[in-house]
Amino acid sequence: MHSENNNVNVLHITMKKSALQKARASYQPKLPIALAGAVKVVEGHATQSVADQEAIKALFPNTYGLPEIRFEKNPTATPGKPVNVGVILSGGQAPGGHNVICGLFDGIKKIHKESRLFGFLMGPQGLVEHRYIELTAPIIDEYRNTGGFDIIGSGRTKLEKKDQFDKGLEILRELNISALVIIGGDDSNTNAAILAEYYKSIGAGIQVIGCPKTIDGDLKNDVIETSFGFDTATKVYSEVIGNIQRDCNSAKKYWHFIKLMGRSASHIALECALQCQPNVCLISEEIEAKNMSLDDIVAYIADIVASRAADGNNFGTVLIPEGLIEFIPEFKRLISELNELLGANKDKVAGMDNAQLTEFIMTNLSADNVAALKKLPESVARQLMLDRDPHGNVQVSLIETEKLLSGLVAARLEATPSFAACGGKFSSLHHFFGYEGRCADPSNFDADYCYSLGFNASALINAGVTGYMSSIRNLVKPAVQWIPGGIPITMMMNIERRNAEDKPVIQKALVRLDGAPFQKFASQRDDWAHNTCYIYPGPIQYFGPAEVCDQPSMTLKYEHRH
Amino acid sequence: MHSENNNVNVLHITMKKSALQKARASYQPKLPIALAGAVKVVEGHATQSVADQEAIKALFPNTYGLPEIRFEKNPTATPGKPVNVGVILSGGQAPGGHNVICGLFDGIKKIHKESRLFGFLMGPQGLVEHRYIELTAPIIDEYRNTGGFDIIGSGRTKLEKKDQFDKGLEILRELNISALVIIGGDDSNTNAAILAEYYKSIGAGIQVIGCPKTIDGDLKNDVIETSFGFDTATKVYSEVIGNIQRDCNSAKKYWHFIKLMGRSASHIALECALQCQPNVCLISEEIEAKNMSLDDIVAYIADIVASRAADGNNFGTVLIPEGLIEFIPEFKRLISELNELLGANKDKVAGMDNAQLTEFIMTNLSADNVAALKKLPESVARQLMLDRDPHGNVQVSLIETEKLLSGLVAARLEATPSFAACGGKFSSLHHFFGYEGRCADPSNFDADYCYSLGFNASALINAGVTGYMSSIRNLVKPAVQWIPGGIPITMMMNIERRNAEDKPVIQKALVRLDGAPFQKFASQRDDWAHNTCYIYPGPIQYFGPAEVCDQPSMTLKYEHRH
Repeated sequence: MHSENNNVNVLHITMKKSALQKARASYQPKLPIALAGAVKVVEGHATQSVADQEAIKALFPNTYGLPEIRFEKNPTATPGKPVNVGVILSGGQAPGGHNVICGLFDGIKKIHKESRLFGFLMGPQGLVEHRYIELTAPIIDEYRNTGGFDIIGSGRTKLEKKDQFDKGLEILRELNISALVIIGGDDSNTNAAILAEYYKSIGAGIQVIGCPKTIDGDLKNDVIETSFGFDTATKVYSEVIGNIQRDCNSAKKYWHFIKLMGRSASHIALECALQCQPNVCLISEEIEAKNMSLDDIVAYIADIVASRAADGNNFGTVLIPEGLIEFIPEFKRLISELNELLGANKDKVAGMDNAQLTEFIMTNLSADNVAALKKLPESVARQLMLDRDPHGNVQVSLIETEKLLSGLVAARLEATPSFAACGGKFSSLHHFFGYEGRCADPSNFDADYCYSLGFNASALINAGVTGYMSSIRNLVKPAVQWIPGGIPITMMMNIERRNAEDKPVIQKALVRLDGAPFQKFASQRDDWAHNTCYIYPGPIQYFGPAEVCDQPSMTLKYEHRH
Repeated sequence: MHSENNNVNVLHITMKKSALQKARASYQPKLPIALAGAVKVVEGHATQSVADQEAIKALFPNTYGLPEIRFEKNPTATPGKPVNVGVILSGGQAPGGHNVICGLFDGIKKIHKESRLFGFLMGPQGLVEHRYIELTAPIIDEYRNTGGFDIIGSGRTKLEKKDQFDKGLEILRELNISALVIIGGDDSNTNAAILAEYYKSIGAGIQVIGCPKTIDGDLKNDVIETSFGFDTATKVYSEVIGNIQRDCNSAKKYWHFIKLMGRSASHIALECALQCQPNVCLISEEIEAKNMSLDDIVAYIADIVASRAADGNNFGTVLIPEGLIEFIPEFKRLISELNELLGANKDKVAGMDNAQLTEFIMTNLSADNVAALKKLPESVARQLMLDRDPHGNVQVSLIETEKLLSGLVAARLEATPSFAACGGKFSSLHHFFGYEGRCADPSNFDADYCYSLGFNASALINAGVTGYMSSIRNLVKPAVQWIPGGIPITMMMNIERRNAEDKPVIQKALVRLDGAPFQKFASQRDDWAHNTCYIYPGPIQYFGPAEVCDQPSMTLKYEHRH
């Protein structure tokens, strides 16, 4: 059941299942009506990349400018041929990944019952190292509608080099695989496009199809409405935030500072704010746009704390996006100079102990950034200077922004005598939510969306295309009305500077300050700040009424209301 | 709608409700069949306290030795009289508190439609300070089946002094209240018994009834099967632990150290372990019984990490009960000496800065305890010495045991060359769950149990008793078969030394090492440690099949299997 060359165990022993898992296994995900029977391909116009058209076209001579395609019901089915397909889970976990694979499996089996599906183990590295399992019906059935990526595991290896592509080709040929589905975020899909271009350029006869995955919600654009996993993850976070808010409103004595995963973009924090109506939610993109300093942010929160205290309410909730610190201009400059300084002196600093490294940094950093460092609590300054990833970069996700902010708010309130004088008290508690939501059992929305994405990928394979992303649109409508199709990945690309090189990449979607979700939030947040307007969403429900179980995210609803 | 003398806002503006709340509002909690119509009282034998009978009897001359009572269906209903009742939420939040109040409301309205219910605000302090609201049908209906204590708020003031009792009596008389229901944990119910005795001794004509509340699960005994809230809270924690385990088993690169609320007792950790099957779960009571040192615990975890690493599994989960540190004998001695030393030198240390205080402690502590302090990571030693509660005691709940343990495990593995040599890696992530579960919407079990407890309290009031705890037994059976009744609170008491005084208190229930839940865990944990046997319980479901929605806790099932 597992491959020979396998130093990580992905064993498909029968799991002991919870009562919910057993009951949920029989859920049949809803499919768009267009995918219910045989399909025909409807080609749209030729596409262009979102920017840097000439450069992207030059890099993708074989896969640039292809048309968008849409699938429609085909009354006259033509018999398909068996196809062997490979699938890879790439990057961080997101709820619904298993259903993408289940949909893909069912889709290729519908094309021909002798089609076969192979899963490469522990991410892209499995392709390069020829580690795989065949995903047979009994395995697939164990994983329907479940969270996690444990069916084949995931990994963060980037597929970007020719020797990786060639190594992968060996095993694809050996297994007679003619199409590879890569389930990943923006970077993984960028690399899927490069791989598609390469295989096409050498006439390898391997199609490459991408699927938009990430809880962060930052892989979306005019043609991809949302990435899968965002819906479920934000619902789990909103459940626990709601519970904390209810506790907060019962005990009436704590301020809860809650940091939320989501990398650079603030989509997760914004979605949770729309669902829970906290007293404060910081949006990194707004802070950058308004050029707010750390002091400004602290003052903003402290003012709300003081105003609530004046009403006798010494409690509240603050949502903080994980990527915040990179968007505060003074930090951005500091982090950027730190990364440059230590990058340029890699060999020199390699042997230094912490004291020497601190000394080196303080001596060589510009005066402004030394001052910025000194303003920070010691523990945060130390994290910035000393805790770095293998590439030498600041590990932004490890910085305890929630404690940094509450500490600075406390200091500011202590320095404001009128606060205590009017009965103000400030006690804070801290939370960080991320891992709690990435592997939750998918909501009905994500279960349906993922299954459709996978099933649709089989239709793209059957249509013979490569370098496309599986696309399901019209998502605010009931699933039967969803519109399946494919988008050339190059269409989403532009050129960005990464590690001192110009690279073609899928544009990352940050929160748009002119977008409907942020506008809705901005129009209500003063009310939420000063009054207590908490909403308690509760846990994801799988069996109840549709208005409880089948709602997409607020972000999606507001973005596609019209 | 709120009282005049009110510096905390408990305003019953109509909340904006989530879809789940709206759907859940119409859930009709199940009642024991015996409470469905008119009831008759069946008296059992006279009772005795669990220990120190003479001392307890002397302290409770008017309420000691009363019989257990049971309610049975009464074919001949006698008309009741209107009764005015007061209700108090005391101490930490627990899911289902609102349903106790709703059941109580419905119960006294069934006795007579002109009965009235008054809620004292923000805990026992509301009684003393005469802050209250009348809980009318529209308010009650807003809170049916919801989590939180926000209907009237809660507080930690202890009702234990005569002047508090007398102050309370004023407002009870003013409102013509003849019965007071106190919803709280072991301490609050102890105080309910003292209050009952006092009111009885002065002929005040006020009945006092307690209800067993606490997520910690430590208020239970031969006659009280479980406290409410434990079921829901552990289900919420098990949901997120399960999600983390699925992430852990997908990424296969982290050890998650997860601390769980629960005060001294390890019931919550044990229940979550039975539900999720983590690789490690520490049980404080066992550690104390085996006299395990911190080194022993670290060695135990590190051995499991190393053994899994040898199988290629550099990941896992560790559950840690919040109270652990008090049960490690060396810490217990250290904390106890620290509390004594600083208690005895209160005035002296009051003016000291941190450096002086550290110096004072290091000079005056016994050599053993200085050595124990020095073995700890600096941040933990500092927390022990400097972060103290208003009474000068170590704030055990603030100590980041999860980081302490992972840090010591990492150090031990680094000092073991064979670990890295055989491919071992150890990266840890940390979580603390508590506030996420205390105010969750109650599970069907807690919704039913709480409603029954409250409804049953009205039957106890109607029966004219005082100093009783509302009791619902036979809980592993379907709700209709539950057995309603009342237990004299004095029956659960013994004398314990608290703050240098002998006091009558309800015995706190710690995890019994000879009990079925621990035995079940102990028989399986080696398998869970070395293999990966994770179970993923998923979120609480309210609308699905009974095997998913209506299961009591594993602890309750194992304890009452026979």
